[in-house]
Amino acid sequence: MLLYLSTWAEIGHFLERSRTIVIPIGSNEQHGPTGLLGTDWMCPEIIACQAQKNADILIAPTFNIGMAQHHIGFPGTISLRPSTFIAAISDWVHSLAAHGFEKILFLNGHGGNVASIEAAFSELYAEASFARRPAGFALKLCNWWDLEGVGELAKEQFPTGHGIHATPSEIAVTQWAYPDSIKTAEYSPQVAPWGPIREAFDFRARHVDGRMGSDPAQASPEKGRDLVMMAAQGLIREVEAFSREPIPG
Amino acid sequence: MLLYLSTWAEIGHFLERSRTIVIPIGSNEQHGPTGLLGTDWMCPEIIACQAQKNADILIAPTFNIGMAQHHIGFPGTISLRPSTFIAAISDWVHSLAAHGFEKILFLNGHGGNVASIEAAFSELYAEASFARRPAGFALKLCNWWDLEGVGELAKEQFPTGHGIHATPSEIAVTQWAYPDSIKTAEYSPQVAPWGPIREAFDFRARHVDGRMGSDPAQASPEKGRDLVMMAAQGLIREVEAFSREPIPG
Amino acid sequence: MLLYLSTWAEIGHFLERSRTIVIPIGSNEQHGPTGLLGTDWMCPEIIACQAQKNADILIAPTFNIGMAQHHIGFPGTISLRPSTFIAAISDWVHSLAAHGFEKILFLNGHGGNVASIEAAFSELYAEASFARRPAGFALKLCNWWDLEGVGELAKEQFPTGHGIHATPSEIAVTQWAYPDSIKTAEYSPQVAPWGPIREAFDFRARHVDGRMGSDPAQASPEKGRDLVMMAAQGLIREVEAFSREPIPG
Amino acid sequence: MLLYLSTWAEIGHFLERSRTIVIPIGSNEQHGPTGLLGTDWMCPEIIACQAQKNADILIAPTFNIGMAQHHIGFPGTISLRPSTFIAAISDWVHSLAAHGFEKILFLNGHGGNVASIEAAFSELYAEASFARRPAGFALKLCNWWDLEGVGELAKEQFPTGHGIHATPSEIAVTQWAYPDSIKTAEYSPQVAPWGPIREAFDFRARHVDGRMGSDPAQASPEKGRDLVMMAAQGLIREVEAFSREPIPG
Amino acid sequence: MLLYLSTWAEIGHFLERSRTIVIPIGSNEQHGPTGLLGTDWMCPEIIACQAQKNADILIAPTFNIGMAQHHIGFPGTISLRPSTFIAAISDWVHSLAAHGFEKILFLNGHGGNVASIEAAFSELYAEASFARRPAGFALKLCNWWDLEGVGELAKEQFPTGHGIHATPSEIAVTQWAYPDSIKTAEYSPQVAPWGPIREAFDFRARHVDGRMGSDPAQASPEKGRDLVMMAAQGLIREVEAFSREPIPG
Amino acid sequence: MLLYLSTWAEIGHFLERSRTIVIPIGSNEQHGPTGLLGTDWMCPEIIACQAQKNADILIAPTFNIGMAQHHIGFPGTISLRPSTFIAAISDWVHSLAAHGFEKILFLNGHGGNVASIEAAFSELYAEASFARRPAGFALKLCNWWDLEGVGELAKEQFPTGHGIHATPSEIAVTQWAYPDSIKTAEYSPQVAPWGPIREAFDFRARHVDGRMGSDPAQASPEKGRDLVMMAAQGLIREVEAFSREPIPG
Repeated sequence: MLLYLSTWAEIGHFLERSRTIVIPIGSNEQHGPTGLLGTDWMCPEIIACQAQKNADILIAPTFNIGMAQHHIGFPGTISLRPSTFIAAISDWVHSLAAHGFEKILFLNGHGGNVASIEAAFSELYAEASFARRPAGFALKLCNWWDLEGVGELAKEQFPTGHGIHATPSEIAVTQWAYPDSIKTAEYSPQVAPWGPIREAFDFRARHVDGRMGSDPAQASPEKGRDLVMMAAQGLIREVEAFSREPIPG
Repeated sequence: MLLYLSTWAEIGHFLERSRTIVIPIGSNEQHGPTGLLGTDWMCPEIIACQAQKNADILIAPTFNIGMAQHHIGFPGTISLRPSTFIAAISDWVHSLAAHGFEKILFLNGHGGNVASIEAAFSELYAEASFARRPAGFALKLCNWWDLEGVGELAKEQFPTGHGIHATPSEIAVTQWAYPDSIKTAEYSPQVAPWGPIREAFDFRARHVDGRMGSDPAQASPEKGRDLVMMAAQGLIREVEAFSREPIPG
Repeated sequence: MLLYLSTWAEIGHFLERSRTIVIPIGSNEQHGPTGLLGTDWMCPEIIACQAQKNADILIAPTFNIGMAQHHIGFPGTISLRPSTFIAAISDWVHSLAAHGFEKILFLNGHGGNVASIEAAFSELYAEASFARRPAGFALKLCNWWDLEGVGELAKEQFPTGHGIHATPSEIAVTQWAYPDSIKTAEYSPQVAPWGPIREAFDFRARHVDGRMGSDPAQASPEKGRDLVMMAAQGLIREVEAFSREPIPG
Repeated sequence: MLLYLSTWAEIGHFLERSRTIVIPIGSNEQHGPTGLLGTDWMCPEIIACQAQKNADILIAPTFNIGMAQHHIGFPGTISLRPSTFIAAISDWVHSLAAHGFEKILFLNGHGGNVASIEAAFSELYAEASFARRPAGFALKLCNWWDLEGVGELAKEQFPTGHGIHATPSEIAVTQWAYPDSIKTAEYSPQVAPWGPIREAFDFRARHVDGRMGSDPAQASPEKGRDLVMMAAQGLIREVEAFSREPIPG
Repeated sequence: MLLYLSTWAEIGHFLERSRTIVIPIGSNEQHGPTGLLGTDWMCPEIIACQAQKNADILIAPTFNIGMAQHHIGFPGTISLRPSTFIAAISDWVHSLAAHGFEKILFLNGHGGNVASIEAAFSELYAEASFARRPAGFALKLCNWWDLEGVGELAKEQFPTGHGIHATPSEIAVTQWAYPDSIKTAEYSPQVAPWGPIREAFDFRARHVDGRMGSDPAQASPEKGRDLVMMAAQGLIREVEAFSREPIPG
Repeated sequence: MLLYLSTWAEIGHFLERSRTIVIPIGSNEQHGPTGLLGTDWMCPEIIACQAQKNADILIAPTFNIGMAQHHIGFPGTISLRPSTFIAAISDWVHSLAAHGFEKILFLNGHGGNVASIEAAFSELYAEASFARRPAGFALKLCNWWDLEGVGELAKEQFPTGHGIHATPSEIAVTQWAYPDSIKTAEYSPQVAPWGPIREAFDFRARHVDGRMGSDPAQASPEKGRDLVMMAAQGLIREVEAFSREPIPG
């Protein structure tokens, strides 16, 4: 069930049978010579959209701009500062908690978001902690590549040259979902180098075409489809387990 | 051209021929018994997407959560506080300005966003003003219903019962774009009442089903298509005029 | 009744008969070659002060610095950033609400304040909305030129060359109240040009002497007096209507 | 010279002969059974206004709401939080520095403001310090009761029962300037008690009628006139000394 | 009793017999040619540590970075902005208040902290004041040099050349506690000059070696020991008096 | 070299031979029935202090309060909110960068700090990234238990019951450094359970005595000494490698 294609009354009914919601969250940032700028928010959106076709789970609109300050040296990247990111996640959670949602799962598509999302969770929990009261909600962060079975499948599909940015697995997912937007390029070197992640100036100097450790040429729509199906099943299981979890208070 | 389906190199090329970008911006909030929760961010997204099919204009990802605090009494609404909204717009603009964009047009789909967007513009401009230097960019807010010809068309289509929230025109636009998500309901009264806009508790007490002054039953996909086409043309003209405008400094 | 010339006990008594207060709010900013820097906060102060002579209404001290970042290119302008403005309005309202005021009317003298004041209202209401409780107060913004009868009178007095900044109507109001501070100058051109409002650098380049669309030479103390009297009556009616309005919760 | 009764061009001319400005700053808060709520911002305003009649000094509009959280238990008090206060002072200073003011003197009327004003100064200076550059301006805080000769005069006028809040000296100043607003009451006890200053609830419990250590019955307009004249002379000397001070950089 | 060398259960037991805690607070900043960078946080830490050997008082970890923006021109200085300082003190107090501490005494070692600490107290109290409820805690600031008997002793020990920064008294305290870190230098002039405190650039230009009015050559470990013993006794008395004080509410 | 036991001139000399500094950072929070509240900040302090005895590295004062909101249910815990934590780290880094430090290594002692420290780094880098300039400094986070050889040693020492909070390894480190503060207790169960980390209310309900997965009874001062020596060596190597790393720009 997609929240944004529902009416408020439909969400009201959903809340009678479940208190759980999934928020796809990612980033809009360069993904190398062939990766789409939207890759990191489209991947969790694609997976979440697929999952809700097979199970009664509710998907929020996509939180599409994340913490991508290091990619700003490449045109098209849009980033929030961590402080803004924390404030925005806080407002999303307060809105959803006001409706009675008690389990809020962020399905994440960008490694660079992890620290700021967890910091946001702590900021939210701290309100309750300082007041010595229950928060009334539980928050969970799941990276789509950590969903059950996904890591193993990606390792099979891309035993070398997977890397950590502009990876063939994320590009494959977008190729399956947006076949009209598949791009090609010569990669040089075939597998990109690694390095530390600092400010954008430093990043662009180290990572000339934007990739980190990856060979995106290995991506294909078929591999993308398999990843999406595996991830969608994993998400459904995560949501079920999270929904069943009791909350003290 | 959709930014999120492009590579960074493609955006780099675009910047050689234009310094203008369009950001669809809206809100995720209740829209009465039949309006979709995503209506206010989907309308500018639909229009912008249509416009870029007929002209060389660049569309950013959609800023999909806006200032909707008064609707939080209805399930599914997600709102930013104005302070968060201002911080987020600021980060978007700083990101785009870093790439060399000089004209940033926000195509807005939610009346409740107007004050906070304008406040955000002032917050951004103030940095330059306190430093007595040019800002380096110009910001413009266009509500899609104010684009050339759109208001007249809506008045023809809906001479009575248009209202200001959950209007037949915005619902028509989403009906055309998402025909599988058309909802129906009995409206009572047929045309909803009006009232002041304050906090969510007050709003829900005054506006029982969420509408303000509207009769959404008049919406149809065909009327939606006509509105989208008119608005897309208007947007192209706005972008052209804005792009041509000289900036002092 | 002027709050600042009263004791706390007198305000305590007032609260037994009314829960409404008026805050004159404006800006300290350039007003062309002859307009006083204080024009925008003095106009609502003058009108509010006049109104309380004829009715039992309570006037707060004047909020005299507003959102005037675009005028900083002209000496004497003092501006708050919107974020500061919102924080300050929030503190004023929290202070007054703590005393039991339930209807807080901002009588505004500066068009550039409107967006930030409305954003501040939303920021305040959002606290209650996120907590799903009544706010306990209602906020209202009235521009003095929108008070009943004022627009019509100004149109009669200044059928052409009224403009939107350093207008003959606002200058007339200050001429009536501060006759010793009437200034004169040659205007060139007689009616100033218009243009967009962006950062201070851009504004000063476009509006050489600071005016926007106005011919202040038409102002006179007599016209000012008529405007003040009309506006004061309008304010009294606004306050009465606002005071009578029921608040849900 | 009063800034708000001047045009921007007049301030431009003033800047050619001086880079110094005086900002009256105070608070709007309860002042016991007979003190006016505006006492703390009116006193520095009255003194500054008097001083500029006898010397070529420039007076900014009055910063009329200060840090008065402890008085909120008494109706009519309006307070900023220190964080808001700091942000507002910062914006005032940035505005004035943009025009070329290099010496900004805050003439203060409220003891409770001192810490927050000094914190604001440090916040402003820290921007320059972190950047290892000169600030370009110097800030000075003067309490009006610390101006040359004022403390001695007050001690002569009120050898006992001066106290620290709702003092006969500050009330005398307002009696001279606002003779129509002189209030009387029975004081019980004649000299109010002292105590620590904490939150408003605690303050009101300790200081039943709002006074701290004072016997305001001793105030008279004549004593007020003498205090104002002494303070105005002191202010002129302070401004002259401050203006002459060299700034490194 | 040192909190950081205790277990949570031990603190739980302490709370059954006392609701008071002491926080040593200072700054890490240059202290002239021979003063240690840690002087201002080590002095209150040393004194508090000594005091708890002779009385059942609880000492929190040391708040070791304060408001020292003016010293940033000298290597090794670390400063918080006042806004950060206020936020941090606020979190410390909220944490301790959550455990039931009702009397929180800040034993301060840096004059430059005073304004920001007091502003932080007001920020904390304002939360309660705006909500018209008791705060539930009382906050107290004690500078170690103001503890009973300390000022007199320092005046005896250093009748001239005490000054206000890099004073012989504070250096003596650290010499006693850290005898292996005693430094020597030629002072020129023997007694340093005074001047205003502004941004770091200005400060370094005025105070070439960092001292203000002091002759640190007079310090000795023996004088330091006497100061610590006097201050520790004074602290115990302060804590006892503060603990006994009733809180309304 | 310990910064706080040095003079500013000594730090000035150090900067001529190195641009690297180590900041021990931790948390003050409950550590089960026998762990000291200061454990998480004392461990990196102890290790850093040991390391500087054998190598020319500079150690800053300890950042002793971290992100521990989930432990607030246990007396003695003090926590910053992530937003405060980010602001404070930002000020530390800006201070040190102003002196010319280019490599700032945070030696961390608390897993709960990791996300907020990384978010702080991104917040700092983002300033440079939005401005498209080099940051001028590089930041590095090292958990002491991840230093070379430490994890292996801890696994040898505590093959079972190490857990993740109140671990025998961190308690061993403090036992070695503070032998007079070794505490004992009966643990029930011997090895504590695990669970998710949310707000303090939830945490205390799940983790009755505060431990997570650990059996602290295995700690001994001797094991602590071995861990410290191993970690100190690892830190020296980290500092050397980090110092040698070139920075683009």
